[in-house]
Amino acid sequence: MARRKKIYEGKAKILYEGPEPGTLVQYFKDDATAFNAEKKATVDGKGVLNNRLSEFFMTGLNMIGVPTHFIRRINMREQLIRSVEIIPLEVIVRNVAAGSMAKRLGLEEGTQLPRPIIEFSYKDDALGDPLVPEEYIIAFGWASQQDMDDIVALALRVNDYLSGVMYGVGIRLVDFKIEIGRVYEGDFMRLIVADEISPDSCRLWDIATGQKLDKDVFRRDLGSLTDAYTEVARRLGVMPANTPNTSKPTLIN
Amino acid sequence: MARRKKIYEGKAKILYEGPEPGTLVQYFKDDATAFNAEKKATVDGKGVLNNRLSEFFMTGLNMIGVPTHFIRRINMREQLIRSVEIIPLEVIVRNVAAGSMAKRLGLEEGTQLPRPIIEFSYKDDALGDPLVPEEYIIAFGWASQQDMDDIVALALRVNDYLSGVMYGVGIRLVDFKIEIGRVYEGDFMRLIVADEISPDSCRLWDIATGQKLDKDVFRRDLGSLTDAYTEVARRLGVMPANTPNTSKPTLIN
Repeated sequence: MARRKKIYEGKAKILYEGPEPGTLVQYFKDDATAFNAEKKATVDGKGVLNNRLSEFFMTGLNMIGVPTHFIRRINMREQLIRSVEIIPLEVIVRNVAAGSMAKRLGLEEGTQLPRPIIEFSYKDDALGDPLVPEEYIIAFGWASQQDMDDIVALALRVNDYLSGVMYGVGIRLVDFKIEIGRVYEGDFMRLIVADEISPDSCRLWDIATGQKLDKDVFRRDLGSLTDAYTEVARRLGVMPANTPNTSKPTLIN
Repeated sequence: MARRKKIYEGKAKILYEGPEPGTLVQYFKDDATAFNAEKKATVDGKGVLNNRLSEFFMTGLNMIGVPTHFIRRINMREQLIRSVEIIPLEVIVRNVAAGSMAKRLGLEEGTQLPRPIIEFSYKDDALGDPLVPEEYIIAFGWASQQDMDDIVALALRVNDYLSGVMYGVGIRLVDFKIEIGRVYEGDFMRLIVADEISPDSCRLWDIATGQKLDKDVFRRDLGSLTDAYTEVARRLGVMPANTPNTSKPTLIN
């Protein structure tokens, strides 16, 4: 394992060369970062939880016919994924005003939006992932108009599905971010969901109490991030392998 | 309550005049029927469970912007709904072959379909709710082509969402039936989800064991229907009011 070729290292994940052409191994680190990496910490077990949760959500999406990069989980921290050509956008879907949108528009956090709103950030850490209008995306050739129509349709399906998954266990899906990649199958290009879906990339509020169960716990110092993510996993019946099914498992690397 | 005007009595529900124009009261009976009412029974507490479950699913759909007839639950067996002009179709969405489709095509129950398949039955008990092609629906004027396009889009959103709700609690949404009604808002006509969404109108299989948690338990004499519906409600955190939160509540009429 140590001699595998590292393809890319991000803030929370590492990508290694996969066992077959067209595949990669995605490794989930315990590193937590926020505010474009100005705030950093190591959160014991976060990588294990996100590996399992991303597996769970992407498996569900694959089952309803929303294509994703997920192939199978390899171990506690790694999953086999399809290698994609990443579109350099963060695709953000918001149901409720929170975070940067609430700040930008002077809206109170928790304001229900009139309908789901999709926005795009250009993925560039040096620029702080700036919000960009669709006009920029097409003019600079990051994606075509047809791509954007397909991305919006995919993002809305993911939103309906994940909203349901969360609602079933008493959680409100406030917003989330996905990334989209291109895969080529012969002459045919398909857009698929890539990166990860986890409490790192969603805002999740308990419906009954409003308690935050996502990365805002870390961003805003609201308690134990591991406890929050473990609560999400527990409700969904997603427990890291080899750990007891309690609300506070001892996570093993 | 006894002097209310009864508008319609169906096999599992009664509709009464509502307190305001444009509303109805939907009462959930304990009657279970199958095979076009050839098989009949009374199942203690079924109406209470379906009232709560339909409230739960329709509230969730309203939250994601899929309009439904549901306004609010009144008591254990009744809910306030919008009066609609019902389109005389059962809109059936299938993810997995089961029931009449499996029989009709000689498919093994449990066969994953290549994509969700939507079919329509003409609502007429005397004819046994026959399956009809879209061509009939439009030719006979039961719905327009535009209606049908909108109904398909609505049905697919309901499928994505309910698939998610069920997946989050370890249940596979095999298929379901909805009805669609027209409401008029000034000059504007809208299509909304009507009737009910409950284990009477869905096929629900436990993902881990394949156990049936829906009306097939009654159709095929597989055990206690109340236990099956209570298990669905328990997993979703939906318990009839005033009953202890145990797996087998004593249901009160």
